[in-house]
Amino acid sequence: MKLKIKFLDLEAGGKPVIILSKDDAEELGIRSLGRAKLHSGKKEMNAIVNVTKHGMKGYVGFYEEVKNYFGLREHTEIEVETAKFPVSLHHIINRLKGRKLAAEEISEIVKDVVEGNLSEIEIAAFVTTLNNFGLDLDEAANLSMAMIETGDRLKLNRKIILDKHSVGGVPGDKTTILVVPIVAANGFTIPKTSSRAITSAAGTADRVETLMPVELSVDEMKKVVEKTNGCMVWGGALRLAPADDIFIQVEFPLSIDPMLLPSIMGKKKAVGATHLVIDIPTGRGTKMKTIGDSDLLAKDFIALGRKLGIKTQCALTFGEQPVGHAIGPALEAREAMEILTREKYVPDVIDKAVHIAGMLLEMAGKKDGEALARETIKSGKAEKKLREIIAAQGGDDKIKPEEMKIGDYSLDIHAENSGVVLWINNADIVEVARTAGTPKDHGAGIYMYKKLGDRVNKGDKLFTIFAEKNSKLISANKLLEEHEIMGIGDKMEMLIHKVTELHVHKKTFILER
Amino acid sequence: MKLKIKFLDLEAGGKPVIILSKDDAEELGIRSLGRAKLHSGKKEMNAIVNVTKHGMKGYVGFYEEVKNYFGLREHTEIEVETAKFPVSLHHIINRLKGRKLAAEEISEIVKDVVEGNLSEIEIAAFVTTLNNFGLDLDEAANLSMAMIETGDRLKLNRKIILDKHSVGGVPGDKTTILVVPIVAANGFTIPKTSSRAITSAAGTADRVETLMPVELSVDEMKKVVEKTNGCMVWGGALRLAPADDIFIQVEFPLSIDPMLLPSIMGKKKAVGATHLVIDIPTGRGTKMKTIGDSDLLAKDFIALGRKLGIKTQCALTFGEQPVGHAIGPALEAREAMEILTREKYVPDVIDKAVHIAGMLLEMAGKKDGEALARETIKSGKAEKKLREIIAAQGGDDKIKPEEMKIGDYSLDIHAENSGVVLWINNADIVEVARTAGTPKDHGAGIYMYKKLGDRVNKGDKLFTIFAEKNSKLISANKLLEEHEIMGIGDKMEMLIHKVTELHVHKKTFILER
Repeated sequence: MKLKIKFLDLEAGGKPVIILSKDDAEELGIRSLGRAKLHSGKKEMNAIVNVTKHGMKGYVGFYEEVKNYFGLREHTEIEVETAKFPVSLHHIINRLKGRKLAAEEISEIVKDVVEGNLSEIEIAAFVTTLNNFGLDLDEAANLSMAMIETGDRLKLNRKIILDKHSVGGVPGDKTTILVVPIVAANGFTIPKTSSRAITSAAGTADRVETLMPVELSVDEMKKVVEKTNGCMVWGGALRLAPADDIFIQVEFPLSIDPMLLPSIMGKKKAVGATHLVIDIPTGRGTKMKTIGDSDLLAKDFIALGRKLGIKTQCALTFGEQPVGHAIGPALEAREAMEILTREKYVPDVIDKAVHIAGMLLEMAGKKDGEALARETIKSGKAEKKLREIIAAQGGDDKIKPEEMKIGDYSLDIHAENSGVVLWINNADIVEVARTAGTPKDHGAGIYMYKKLGDRVNKGDKLFTIFAEKNSKLISANKLLEEHEIMGIGDKMEMLIHKVTELHVHKKTFILER
Repeated sequence: MKLKIKFLDLEAGGKPVIILSKDDAEELGIRSLGRAKLHSGKKEMNAIVNVTKHGMKGYVGFYEEVKNYFGLREHTEIEVETAKFPVSLHHIINRLKGRKLAAEEISEIVKDVVEGNLSEIEIAAFVTTLNNFGLDLDEAANLSMAMIETGDRLKLNRKIILDKHSVGGVPGDKTTILVVPIVAANGFTIPKTSSRAITSAAGTADRVETLMPVELSVDEMKKVVEKTNGCMVWGGALRLAPADDIFIQVEFPLSIDPMLLPSIMGKKKAVGATHLVIDIPTGRGTKMKTIGDSDLLAKDFIALGRKLGIKTQCALTFGEQPVGHAIGPALEAREAMEILTREKYVPDVIDKAVHIAGMLLEMAGKKDGEALARETIKSGKAEKKLREIIAAQGGDDKIKPEEMKIGDYSLDIHAENSGVVLWINNADIVEVARTAGTPKDHGAGIYMYKKLGDRVNKGDKLFTIFAEKNSKLISANKLLEEHEIMGIGDKMEMLIHKVTELHVHKKTFILER
């Protein structure tokens, strides 16, 4: 059928999408979300069809992706015919029936996800089914490899390449900014890629960005690592696993995360990691609530690492309160700098960092890694290495912690009664920080003066909220009326809460990887 | 945040969708497929957000649905702020974790589906999860009730209301056009609604439409039934279960059908059915391949019927070949007319119809229903009733079978060898018929002269393909090169086919309800 092209001036998120009138679609026998083949000269393309009930008869509406591919003028005629669904959809449909997928099948699915050949509905069904039925080890490994095949890779000529990753979920976790310079200062290679915040107050890429540029290409990253042994860059700019960004798009509204393992391990394989430590923050208010669950996840990471040829160890870490005092991109980067410059001693941040760095150093052959890591901070070698990395990535290597830009608007919150800090609500801290502007406003966040077990007197300053905009500070403050960030008292109350009728169960969802 | 309105001149399939620039969305903390609240004066609306990377900064793009709701002019400013996901999404998320849903929760989900408050991804996840985990009886009943609550209902002042339904999957099934007049002619009420074809060559609504108008309102339908005791109308025009049309939209590309039972039974409840016969065509090439599977499905229908207060019986019927000779809307309606006018005697069509009509008549209190049904055809009472219904629905009640419009283009296919018809491929027949133009071209289709077990001599006419357009006839003929419609020989070959390597498994999907 010949139809006239109409431009829609809209993009479809990388997918080739066209719009047909109901009449023309019925004539072609295509339903909404079915497929059409477009021809013009030697160019042809299979597109996802949206059907509109109003107007468009005789026309085919082109989204930007299709418009750019054909490069034809508006109102030109183009041949439109019925096309079959992509073969990868049949693999997804078989997966819906509970069948496991072969390596080639996973490859085809991931390729079509990246090339935009599968609709959001089809991707949602795939992700939902992986969530519902679970992935086996082979499928996870094949998914990792398929994500790498469709992305770019970092090739370093080093025998040992170390890496670390946190499954996330605990606020204030600036560990990476300490671990990378410690490891690199000891002569080992650590090409660290990080993510930006999705549901948290700050991702490592957001934090690091307040110290230096993080949007490097693979080539630029390679130069930094070859020069300094380390780097801290945003993974999203590297296209290491472009499929993952598309999966996350679907996982986010559904609050599911079945790709956690294959996605993380795939990205580590893509930078050539040979030895890896996975940090699994554990406890109420994190992604992993119990030590039992975390131990099982650790087992899965180690098994998948074996399949992919990455020696993997895991560290279960205490996650029932923020790490350190600072939450928010700049506040956290400042705290990490203060530790490396030895201006401040923040026991929990240091403890966590030296344990993880120590495990890496030991995996690489060093003895007593924890002590070596601690010494690397104390001696100033870690600070020196961080400044080298800052310079290599194009930042200001003379930067002082006190020069870092924190939001101009702030509000102190004081204790209403005396006692001991019995609990801290991570999810509420994140919500308040995000309302104050994080992660977009790098200078926004929270600084906590009191942590679990600390003695508090009525009127003591508990924490300060920072914001770049006053309106956001006001909104964050308003949230505090509904949310209790900390529990202060002499003993835990026995009643957690009553449930007296059917209620809506809303669980905090943490999607960071 | 105040943003200027920009019209997109596109509809979003009933959903309130807006487009924001990446910058504005990040400032608001909203990701793609997140939600925003729009205010203007006293009007407010929660919309689904699509984020665009190119342009639109300072603007909010309005799809038709949002434009129509607010009725504001382009470039007017409107307040846009972050909104929470709808509560029903939390129910869906809990279902993803394997939890069963309460009645209120299902109600909220279905209400939000109908009102457009859930994105396609969220609906796809819900449907996929129901497919993966299965529905229990309570959930199925609650889904039926929720679909009815959000739709219109037929209220007839009759104590006994009979109904029939086929789960579909067998081509040429014109049974309804016989059953409705038989039952109505015996003084019983049968307010029959039918669907149009989705994956088949013809739905009952498509068939009936060649005899009379089928797009009636609930009020018009009621008048027809009160006058004639029966009707045959298109369910889609009635809004009996608008949620179902949206679920089908998602189910179609995924080739899954988890709503089959609640959807069918909901629509029957919506017309007030008290007694129901479900036809389950069984055999290779239909939806239900084995008698065992069909018996289990029958059990589910009867159990769900009990929950909903509908006395339900099921008929497993032979589905390994088309019912009768004719496939395609007009061809099938003509065959049904020829039977009722006693011009032709088509044993399998009559046999199926009198069994199903007989079951209904017996459920309503009659003795020996099958014989009564047979007699109702023979006596001409069924024909008279059909003509009454045609007249009441606004058709030509004098119509003769030979006057019905069949496609002008036709092609006879002859046997290449002699033998007995050993098998007939339903799926291929449907594909050829659809390629010839069905269901959109009502006059297209196939007429079969030979059926299972018939003796065939080389050169005998096997079937004729009809089309309204010559180009479609050519395409259908071309398909025959790849597809073998019938197997003719002296005995079945032992080897079905070889499987020598990993292949793509594409299963024919039948979505009719």
